[in-house]
Amino acid sequence: MKALAAETLMTNASALNIALIGYGTVGSGVARILATQGESLAVRAGRPINLRRVVVRDASKAREYMPAGTEVSTDINSVLNDADIQLVVQLVGGIDPAHDYMQKFLLAGKDIVTANKALLYQHGESLFQLAAKHDRTIGFEAAVAGGIPIISAVTQALTANQILSIEAILNGTSNFILTQMLDHDQTYDDVLKEAQALGYAEADPAMDVDGTDAAQKLSILTQLAFSTRVPLESIVRQGIDSLELLDLQVAAELGYKIKLLATSRLHDGRLEISVQPTLIRSDRTIAQIDGADNIVAVEGDAVGLTTFSGAGAGQLPTASAVMADIIDYAVGRTKLTFQSILRSMKQPAVPIQPQEELSRRYYLRFTVEDRAHVVADIADILGRHEISISSMRQDEPSCEATAATGTARLVIMTHQTTEGRLRAADSELTKLACIQGKSIRLPVAD
Amino acid sequence: MKALAAETLMTNASALNIALIGYGTVGSGVARILATQGESLAVRAGRPINLRRVVVRDASKAREYMPAGTEVSTDINSVLNDADIQLVVQLVGGIDPAHDYMQKFLLAGKDIVTANKALLYQHGESLFQLAAKHDRTIGFEAAVAGGIPIISAVTQALTANQILSIEAILNGTSNFILTQMLDHDQTYDDVLKEAQALGYAEADPAMDVDGTDAAQKLSILTQLAFSTRVPLESIVRQGIDSLELLDLQVAAELGYKIKLLATSRLHDGRLEISVQPTLIRSDRTIAQIDGADNIVAVEGDAVGLTTFSGAGAGQLPTASAVMADIIDYAVGRTKLTFQSILRSMKQPAVPIQPQEELSRRYYLRFTVEDRAHVVADIADILGRHEISISSMRQDEPSCEATAATGTARLVIMTHQTTEGRLRAADSELTKLACIQGKSIRLPVAD
Repeated sequence: MKALAAETLMTNASALNIALIGYGTVGSGVARILATQGESLAVRAGRPINLRRVVVRDASKAREYMPAGTEVSTDINSVLNDADIQLVVQLVGGIDPAHDYMQKFLLAGKDIVTANKALLYQHGESLFQLAAKHDRTIGFEAAVAGGIPIISAVTQALTANQILSIEAILNGTSNFILTQMLDHDQTYDDVLKEAQALGYAEADPAMDVDGTDAAQKLSILTQLAFSTRVPLESIVRQGIDSLELLDLQVAAELGYKIKLLATSRLHDGRLEISVQPTLIRSDRTIAQIDGADNIVAVEGDAVGLTTFSGAGAGQLPTASAVMADIIDYAVGRTKLTFQSILRSMKQPAVPIQPQEELSRRYYLRFTVEDRAHVVADIADILGRHEISISSMRQDEPSCEATAATGTARLVIMTHQTTEGRLRAADSELTKLACIQGKSIRLPVAD
Repeated sequence: MKALAAETLMTNASALNIALIGYGTVGSGVARILATQGESLAVRAGRPINLRRVVVRDASKAREYMPAGTEVSTDINSVLNDADIQLVVQLVGGIDPAHDYMQKFLLAGKDIVTANKALLYQHGESLFQLAAKHDRTIGFEAAVAGGIPIISAVTQALTANQILSIEAILNGTSNFILTQMLDHDQTYDDVLKEAQALGYAEADPAMDVDGTDAAQKLSILTQLAFSTRVPLESIVRQGIDSLELLDLQVAAELGYKIKLLATSRLHDGRLEISVQPTLIRSDRTIAQIDGADNIVAVEGDAVGLTTFSGAGAGQLPTASAVMADIIDYAVGRTKLTFQSILRSMKQPAVPIQPQEELSRRYYLRFTVEDRAHVVADIADILGRHEISISSMRQDEPSCEATAATGTARLVIMTHQTTEGRLRAADSELTKLACIQGKSIRLPVAD
């Protein structure tokens, strides 16, 4: 009876046949949503959505939520050669063979939905052109910020705005680690091990903790918002892996939280762009996003500051975004949206501001010899590079380490200055014999 | 040169001709965005958007941002009879004559974009049916939460989810007043007067401060999320007009902020729905939305908790949402989305939980005679209605008022109990001679 009722609500009974490439966390999440919400999805989509084929690496493995009638294969040709499949949900990560797959699907006349952010960062422009050339579409809501509908916000809901800035926490792993360190007085290494055990961090967490993942996502958002293609090299990029618990504690005492902040901001007609652990005033919404959550704050000239937050990763949140793309496609919206995105990406790109000209306040932390004149030596170098000091303190909340080594930790907050001046000062500071080990330099968001 | 470049990016050169009905705050905001962003809007829309006609009450008034070629009239027939106008942006507020206008436009073959939430609450269902019957569409992103794209989030981005709950601050005026009272130790009346002087509150603020505005918006969101049409009578509704500064202060001491919270929540297959000043733990994101901002937190079974915040009213934020609807229309998405909304609204409605069964913790504040046995009398009545007390305190932060009258203020926090038990207790409490004036009863959100 219920199925009948649903059917009468559909304007177009022809089913949408889809294939899933990859049946890992997100793929099985998509199948799960189809299995549990299939009827209401069909109503919203106007037609049933059939999971016709799945391509996996090992066909013999039993798989949760796989519908009974779905053909499982290890060969993408099973999908390429099936003319009944209109939409391919490409969930294989990384560049190879995902890039090759995407090109083949587009050439075979298939439309694509994908969550592969690395591929879009690396080859998005040429893939979009290939899709356009063959009158095909690519949906990619799930590629940035998981379940948060930020792609549709930037390309549709806020489309009447000149975007002025994007400030975001885009890497859940980093945010989880920073939150745990501060909340449980743990070191970076200890939390990372725990996060890996819990599945919050990859066995090789490099891309997450060095800022690459967030920078790739920021690059995709920036291209949509400012028509500017930003290669990773143009982004001032810094990971959380060099942070000590002490940095988070000192920042907290000063009224800040440290977050891996991705920023893209229009400033005098140019684009400031960075991904760095950043001191953010504790009372700001963005500072209060804890754990693995993501947040994106978009400022538009008309809408003002609009903020979107939620789960930036995970099986069902990401699958929710993938399914939204699938329903968009089933309804027929995708083509119209994709054409609009293609047109707006052709608008004149906003030029990128040289890294040296980025202007912020900075937090500097040095491990120094515990002796006289150290502060004077450092202050002298900063002064000669016209970096003006706002406050200075020597702090040893965990003084066991420092007492044993005869060192002290020196924290300096600067007034507004440029990345260029600090880089120039750095090259002299590293030569100072009184500075031990690695120093830390973080921007302060106002 | 720039205009030429934009033209080459358009796939379809036929302009979209629109008319504005009403040229107040939002109407002139739409004209302003068209004037300043026209070129890039044309690229995104795929065609130029022309403001062909404007209908106003007084045609002689000079108007900002009105394009030179736009025809101004006081007669809606000028729009009804102009076959070149495809889309009418209906910005006249209230029910009459807006309802009549909407019907006439639909019958004349015009599609509609509107920001009129009261009209959609009152006649949305019949207007949607009329539009469907005549193959027309209604866009209404601006009707709820201004610049925050919550309509598209619920109907598109989160469409793969069974929505589990919506918790929102939907009335900027109330939120502004509550924020000011607490931040500046001011009474409700003083802040209201200030808000009116500043233009943050209407001359007649009744609909804002008594919860009607928020309830109408919640009703619209609820219908989209749960297919349930909720009349105002079914919503437990309470305004902020009976709150005293003391309530905000006591709540703050207990670790809560009081916000006019609109809640729609699936509970055991039924819908709990209320708009009430509510105690929310201070560390929750929703408690930290200050001033005139809005926030909507949507929980979906797949996406988890997703939060959207920003300006819920104001000229440009609202115009931003109206323009998003106009571009959606120009691109051709509106029809597909509107059909999907019509289909999903026909799904079985979630039944509404009777008001008496709403189960929460409560904050109770009484003004009582300052004498012995008062507490025992009140506790006795609560106890007999099985309302269990979690904490009790007599608080007089502003004791001038109470000292003069020989009264004291008694605050009771209850354990989980039902609205029905409290209503039954209320009828006995009001008969107690020791209770003076009006008592306050607020739910606590956990």
